[in-house]
Amino acid sequence: MSFVHHVRPRYAEVDAQGVVFNAHWLTYFDEASTRFFESLGFEPATAFFQEFDVMVVKAVVEWQGPAGFDDHVAIAVAPGRIGTKSFDLVYTATVAGRPACLGTITYVSVTPGTRESAVIPSSLRVALASVATT
Amino acid sequence: MSFVHHVRPRYAEVDAQGVVFNAHWLTYFDEASTRFFESLGFEPATAFFQEFDVMVVKAVVEWQGPAGFDDHVAIAVAPGRIGTKSFDLVYTATVAGRPACLGTITYVSVTPGTRESAVIPSSLRVALASVATT
Amino acid sequence: MSFVHHVRPRYAEVDAQGVVFNAHWLTYFDEASTRFFESLGFEPATAFFQEFDVMVVKAVVEWQGPAGFDDHVAIAVAPGRIGTKSFDLVYTATVAGRPACLGTITYVSVTPGTRESAVIPSSLRVALASVATT
Amino acid sequence: MSFVHHVRPRYAEVDAQGVVFNAHWLTYFDEASTRFFESLGFEPATAFFQEFDVMVVKAVVEWQGPAGFDDHVAIAVAPGRIGTKSFDLVYTATVAGRPACLGTITYVSVTPGTRESAVIPSSLRVALASVATT
Repeated sequence: MSFVHHVRPRYAEVDAQGVVFNAHWLTYFDEASTRFFESLGFEPATAFFQEFDVMVVKAVVEWQGPAGFDDHVAIAVAPGRIGTKSFDLVYTATVAGRPACLGTITYVSVTPGTRESAVIPSSLRVALASVATT
Repeated sequence: MSFVHHVRPRYAEVDAQGVVFNAHWLTYFDEASTRFFESLGFEPATAFFQEFDVMVVKAVVEWQGPAGFDDHVAIAVAPGRIGTKSFDLVYTATVAGRPACLGTITYVSVTPGTRESAVIPSSLRVALASVATT
Repeated sequence: MSFVHHVRPRYAEVDAQGVVFNAHWLTYFDEASTRFFESLGFEPATAFFQEFDVMVVKAVVEWQGPAGFDDHVAIAVAPGRIGTKSFDLVYTATVAGRPACLGTITYVSVTPGTRESAVIPSSLRVALASVATT
Repeated sequence: MSFVHHVRPRYAEVDAQGVVFNAHWLTYFDEASTRFFESLGFEPATAFFQEFDVMVVKAVVEWQGPAGFDDHVAIAVAPGRIGTKSFDLVYTATVAGRPACLGTITYVSVTPGTRESAVIPSSLRVALASVATT
């Protein structure tokens, strides 16, 4: 089963059109990634930055339907491509089962505390592979 | 000459890695679009919502280098593809001439006050075409 | 027992000093108020805007200690002063039992959809009084 | 003459009520403080963190009228109380001359890179006093 993170859009995140402003989806996906990595056994506030770190290099986001204030947003997270130094996470967000937003984000593994790309640590590679669906 | 919008990243927008958090780039691009449409003769706070309105349906963003607190970020905005009911704006952001972030955002023209797609009004189409570089 | 809302600060909300940027506390308090009103029987996305609405007119916030990325922040919410057309909510935020942030926010009751102040509806007044500790 | 910083509210900062969401005012005030300190001769991105640093410990904010998307917001910044280890900045925001938001923020001087309070450096004290109106 894929990992799912739940978000309730804040009043502050809904714009004058009554829907979640587009930029906040990247923040939701980032929050979802925190919980996703935690589900793989990586404690976000510690191991996350010591054992490995990542830098976002690309995001492809498609909006398929609106999400409004306090809606029940479900964000499924699953690994996509897993390369040598980078990998993709695929985010599939729905509101009450209805498609809302689809994101594919590419992360480059970096040496913690730097912007130097590094081979994905084997602990992370094994963990990602264990939940990869493809 | 392409339109250029200038942004100084706020302290609040820089994360613990010391760089602008990824989601804020979509907000910067949105702010740049406001000024871009204004440069085409559309007053953002009035005509913008009455004459036409748009809905973001896709964003492709690539990060090429960091932007830090109070850096001088220049964002060039130019039309990309111009279709019947949708068009792309291409955002090219640099910091001191160095590539920082590249975004292509697809907007669907909608009837103001609704989420119904609509043919791009001719006033907007003509304006976009007048500054298109391709 | 007072109502408590739990927040895990997002990576995007932590600044270059490694702590939650001050403005986000007002957003946390707003999110806490959503859940607090819900706990009183008001469905945020519907009754909230139809039965009553509020406008923030004053906030007094004191920071007592840091909150970092993914900390367990607990925000207790309780009514303070309850007037004829306005009332205060008092927010007491702690991290692992340690004081973090204290906020007193004054809300004016308004006719939904307007900025016109209005007598606090009795349903809201009764609900607030039922959980007031003073 | 007091220092004035200008802000155009972003579409992303306006909520479903059509006005700037309350938390963003603290971000506007922070941005105004960056330019205010710069006007006193402190380069925000360098000397700001090396010569002195500050921590916000208290904010009192009163909202007096709405600010909407792309309004011309003018924020006057002036020192208030100047103590030994802390000082206040007073922010007076108007929209087209109409009162919008009033903030008094208390900053504690800290040793850069720490949360240890420190006597306000004389360079900063002299600069603040030079523009104090009281």
